[in-house]
Amino acid sequence: MTTTVNALQVTGPKASFERATIERRDLRPDDVRIEISHAGICHSDIHTAREEWGGTTYPLTPGHEIIGTVAEVGDEVTTHSVGDVVGVGCFVDSCLQCEACKDGEEQYCTDPGVVQTYGMEDYHGEVTKGGYSQQVVVRDHFVVKIPDGMDLAATTPLLCAGITTYHPLKALGVGQGSKVGVIGMGGLGHVAVKIAAAMGAEVSVLSRTDAKKDDGLAFGAKHYYATEDGSVFDELAGHFDVILNTVGSGIPLDSYMGTLGRGGVMHNLGAPEDNLEVAAFSLLPNRRSLSGSMVGGLPETQEMLDFCAEHGITATVEVIDADQVDDYYEKVVSGDVRYRAVIDVASLA
Amino acid sequence: MTTTVNALQVTGPKASFERATIERRDLRPDDVRIEISHAGICHSDIHTAREEWGGTTYPLTPGHEIIGTVAEVGDEVTTHSVGDVVGVGCFVDSCLQCEACKDGEEQYCTDPGVVQTYGMEDYHGEVTKGGYSQQVVVRDHFVVKIPDGMDLAATTPLLCAGITTYHPLKALGVGQGSKVGVIGMGGLGHVAVKIAAAMGAEVSVLSRTDAKKDDGLAFGAKHYYATEDGSVFDELAGHFDVILNTVGSGIPLDSYMGTLGRGGVMHNLGAPEDNLEVAAFSLLPNRRSLSGSMVGGLPETQEMLDFCAEHGITATVEVIDADQVDDYYEKVVSGDVRYRAVIDVASLA
Repeated sequence: MTTTVNALQVTGPKASFERATIERRDLRPDDVRIEISHAGICHSDIHTAREEWGGTTYPLTPGHEIIGTVAEVGDEVTTHSVGDVVGVGCFVDSCLQCEACKDGEEQYCTDPGVVQTYGMEDYHGEVTKGGYSQQVVVRDHFVVKIPDGMDLAATTPLLCAGITTYHPLKALGVGQGSKVGVIGMGGLGHVAVKIAAAMGAEVSVLSRTDAKKDDGLAFGAKHYYATEDGSVFDELAGHFDVILNTVGSGIPLDSYMGTLGRGGVMHNLGAPEDNLEVAAFSLLPNRRSLSGSMVGGLPETQEMLDFCAEHGITATVEVIDADQVDDYYEKVVSGDVRYRAVIDVASLA
Repeated sequence: MTTTVNALQVTGPKASFERATIERRDLRPDDVRIEISHAGICHSDIHTAREEWGGTTYPLTPGHEIIGTVAEVGDEVTTHSVGDVVGVGCFVDSCLQCEACKDGEEQYCTDPGVVQTYGMEDYHGEVTKGGYSQQVVVRDHFVVKIPDGMDLAATTPLLCAGITTYHPLKALGVGQGSKVGVIGMGGLGHVAVKIAAAMGAEVSVLSRTDAKKDDGLAFGAKHYYATEDGSVFDELAGHFDVILNTVGSGIPLDSYMGTLGRGGVMHNLGAPEDNLEVAAFSLLPNRRSLSGSMVGGLPETQEMLDFCAEHGITATVEVIDADQVDDYYEKVVSGDVRYRAVIDVASLA
């Protein structure tokens, strides 16, 4: 017998969100039932809802930045208890047997691969439904603890935007004195600025205009450059150790590559439809790299949350009601959200 | 008073090589005069001689794989003595003061930058001339020692092809059990196979056809794949830790990216005119990178030579006379050299 809960769903690429009910499974022995309080809106929700990446299964309930309270646990669950405040990110199952899973990089599970939090058939033949809903049932391994005292709405986006930026910053060895550039200061970018600054890096925001300058500096950036004035690329030649590109396509990639110093890395977090294109002579001098990654594994997601709690980091959010999601999708696309929208799931009652 | 020596030169992008005399400077206190015995032909010599990269200064005497015997040393030279067998690679001066130089990465000197072995104005206003000549005079820091007992003709290509491949293999942590792919088995690629195998890697050659299979396996590769049969890309999905791309453009880069495992790196050594183009979704899964580098610094060049001596590695070469250089340029371009051509400079007498 399943549990019926309220949710938001879209039924096609051009449809608006509608209120609906969805079913949540009865608990398996290793399952956790979460009463959701907040669900973040990630730009990838929009790509999927609108089928911009193809292959969306409708009806779709998005949401992979989820915070709530444990309402029930399966018989074998030892790591979470009723009443705990917990989070769920971009995926809800993996094999836990392959090398990637054993290394705590479940996002790169190879056998048969990770199960995304929504819109994907899971290992049991059911299509997953995400956090724009009152409850979710998730295998215990894929549930993380929210440290005490954090603002829950503002912590919610860390489940995707936080780990997506923390993972490469750590993998690339960012620390005290590292020169880090962040291209774009939206949902991902503003969290990247905060985390990199807390790691001790000298952070520069590379944004098209000066519009977000005060915020960027308040978030911890030491420098803020408006790239619409192309002279910045000469000024910063050979400067950065790491650049996080949160923008994707439509930027002069070779110009940015020129701002990387010896061994410098341009790390891409966006997933544009257009190819990334660089001149060979953007890579050869200074031994430069163009790289990418997707979120991070469960152990590191917990580590990121603990790091953010220790450093007082949360996202900067606008908390909205369920009925505002369509409007906010438009605002996300036009870059008008400061800086991440989070649904107050109580509004689904 | 300068010293007049025989050399080969080209006077324009479509000109053939001609014998000429060039002048070598009198020794400065930190200079070494080298009586050249061998000079390798690198594909980049051809690009420069034919002005395919633009900006060639004619007349041009190429050659940046140079071995010879020390004939004279300046008053302050303590590291080399008359009679020593020595080598010179891709550059002959740098500031020795900047951070890159201090780190032994003179190739990335920033102030004002490295002086290439030929065709570039040096810090004294003279245009450098390379190894297709009887002598060269080089600042002591930029001269390396050839270990005893090495075959000199076959060692000559290591001064460029050797360090160009050794540097990234080492920087990327290749060692026992690393899965390394080498795209293209020409001048660079065949040396890459030998060095990576000696480092303990499980090496796979990725060549268009089976034509060089026996050689590839003899050079130390464990596997050899003919990529004209596209099924190899499925077979090798997620397989490699590091791929060295010695080919440049005209290959299906995204297909190759798919053969990289977690944290895998596609490292580019070629310098094609066309941009390198990859899908964002070639980088994001498995946290992949596309990188590049140019040769290596002096300390590492010496280390590479010592490593090759210890492991019995030299290039596989065809030794030619000065009068065969035009013919061999054609053979290099058409991929008909097995695997690097080296000029016996005695033929310039």
